Amino acid sequence: MTEKKKTTQDMSFEILKTSSTSKARLGRITTAHGVIETPAFMPDATRGAVQTISSLQLADTKTSALVSNTLHLYLKPGSELIRSQGGLHQFMHWDKPILTDGGGFQIYSLIHRSSLKGKINAEGMTFQSPLDGSMHTLTPEKSQEIQFDLGSDIKMAFDDCIHADQDKQRNLESVELTTQWSRRAKEKFGAMSNELGVESLIYAIVQGGNDREMRKKSFEELNEIGFDGFAYGGWPIDAEGQFMEDIIGYTASLMPDDKPKYAMGIGTPDDIRKGVELGYDLFDCVLPTRNARHGHLYTSEGILRVKNGEFKDDNRPIDPVCDCTACVNYSRAYIRHLINIDEPLGKSLCTIHNLRYYARMMEDIREQLAIT
Amino acid sequence: MTEKKKTTQDMSFEILKTSSTSKARLGRITTAHGVIETPAFMPDATRGAVQTISSLQLADTKTSALVSNTLHLYLKPGSELIRSQGGLHQFMHWDKPILTDGGGFQIYSLIHRSSLKGKINAEGMTFQSPLDGSMHTLTPEKSQEIQFDLGSDIKMAFDDCIHADQDKQRNLESVELTTQWSRRAKEKFGAMSNELGVESLIYAIVQGGNDREMRKKSFEELNEIGFDGFAYGGWPIDAEGQFMEDIIGYTASLMPDDKPKYAMGIGTPDDIRKGVELGYDLFDCVLPTRNARHGHLYTSEGILRVKNGEFKDDNRPIDPVCDCTACVNYSRAYIRHLINIDEPLGKSLCTIHNLRYYARMMEDIREQLAIT
Repeated sequence: MTEKKKTTQDMSFEILKTSSTSKARLGRITTAHGVIETPAFMPDATRGAVQTISSLQLADTKTSALVSNTLHLYLKPGSELIRSQGGLHQFMHWDKPILTDGGGFQIYSLIHRSSLKGKINAEGMTFQSPLDGSMHTLTPEKSQEIQFDLGSDIKMAFDDCIHADQDKQRNLESVELTTQWSRRAKEKFGAMSNELGVESLIYAIVQGGNDREMRKKSFEELNEIGFDGFAYGGWPIDAEGQFMEDIIGYTASLMPDDKPKYAMGIGTPDDIRKGVELGYDLFDCVLPTRNARHGHLYTSEGILRVKNGEFKDDNRPIDPVCDCTACVNYSRAYIRHLINIDEPLGKSLCTIHNLRYYARMMEDIREQLAIT
Repeated sequence: MTEKKKTTQDMSFEILKTSSTSKARLGRITTAHGVIETPAFMPDATRGAVQTISSLQLADTKTSALVSNTLHLYLKPGSELIRSQGGLHQFMHWDKPILTDGGGFQIYSLIHRSSLKGKINAEGMTFQSPLDGSMHTLTPEKSQEIQFDLGSDIKMAFDDCIHADQDKQRNLESVELTTQWSRRAKEKFGAMSNELGVESLIYAIVQGGNDREMRKKSFEELNEIGFDGFAYGGWPIDAEGQFMEDIIGYTASLMPDDKPKYAMGIGTPDDIRKGVELGYDLFDCVLPTRNARHGHLYTSEGILRVKNGEFKDDNRPIDPVCDCTACVNYSRAYIRHLINIDEPLGKSLCTIHNLRYYARMMEDIREQLAIT
């Protein structure tokens, strides 16, 4: 690498304006692959692609950054392979910012939501691959190595995710492990940044479940280590599916205002709007893309379930005010037909629409913040 | 409809040049939705979409016409629904020529290659829907009604397809039924063209299996009825998978030189080149799109099976000389990864590539004919 070696302190997060009526802020995160105007939503390109659409089609939705998954890419096609291709940006032909998760949440999901084996100890997480049953161990250091292989602009520290309903003992253990792992991640990040002369950012994930005391402990320990940004970790919705505004807002209030605040896994358009008012700058969620694949579409007039019989001969676009490729060229009737016959093109058009809806929503949010 | 009523005689097939070394010809078919420069290959948009790609992406491959399926669209979403949307061109947002098949071959496939019920008699074909088990009857007249609902530019007469190995008795029956059905199709086509004031073309399908005498009988009877073009019907390859050059060439030689000759279901690049030399002008086949979905790609250096391990870290495009979206933007390694994880984007990029390969091949064939 011939790039000039830079430290993370060269990276900037700039607040352009703060709302007078809420904690919302208009900002700008500068990365090695350009600027993310915040508040911003980042779709999930889990395995190196936003399902059913290309990076060119994603760019057409005016999406400014994406999230990809350390664990999934490590398992397939392998992070060394992606490094050999010049990193994930070059591999998937996407020249805007990429954030990669640490892998902790994905392993937690594998272990707790499937019959796969796994265990957590101080060293890291050991888990069984859902692809071939082989056993793997991810540590805070290994997670950073993979993220450096991928060449992401924003790297996440390795965390121990728990469910919101866990008892205090397990919650405390999760907070303490997350602190230890984040410290090791930060050290590895620093060493690799120096060694490779790469400029990127590292954010830490605040754990603590639905317990203010634990959230405070988690944040303060992480803040002492020092990170470029902080994320709300764990589950953002309760057992009833309600947005946990109290703890999410409290966690944001702990974070320093001069650093980006990232609401992981959030969310619905309403929850993102709430998150913005609570002070969060970054959001990611599988909802718009997953819903798209089921024909569940976001529009200016609410949710449109395109499979519904009422749309069978409806020649209007999904949303007449939308400027996406799907809305400009195709009708509800055609897209309904495609979704009904399980044609991938239907999923692709719906994904393009939902991501353009989210991108326009964020544009509107930023515009409102700019003028009020 | 406010269009001026036209008869099919207004439609033109123009031969620009005939080869001095073979029966190949350079031509031009004019339809209500523009010109098809021939020889031309038409991909299959079976159910109103070329699988995994949009009509905009199809247009980007410089494909000049497509084939869609009367039977499949009749079953779902229903041809009346498509008529209510302004026809198939408007429904799928494709403004170039569309050819629709008669439905006979599809029903033949349903009956003979599945456990579905069906029977053939003089009236037409009765068959069980693979979607819900319901019984339907397609007649020569009904097939035309559906094709008028779809608004295709080239309509096919209803035919009774048989396997190449059928005995003489069944072959004769097929030829006679095809003649009767084609006569009824032509009558219905004429009546509906007059009634609706629509300009389109009708081609008939020559049957007769692998028997010259039967092919001659079939062609002569159809020619006496009079059609805008003639197609080679039945199987183009024998039990060993070999292109049946003798009977396919013989059938082409029967057809009048001043009308388009259509080689249905043909084929591989080599078989298309042979077909051109035998005098055929139009081709369609599922091969390039079906193969694409399995990562089986056509290139200037032969077939590339992108799943093969040798391509796992190959950062070159599928075909360095290709100008398609997949080759300009993505590597073999990335496309291999997508195909390996069964990501629809992989199928979509491969489909775009194979169709651009076929379109370029036809451009080359036409260019060679123009200069020699």
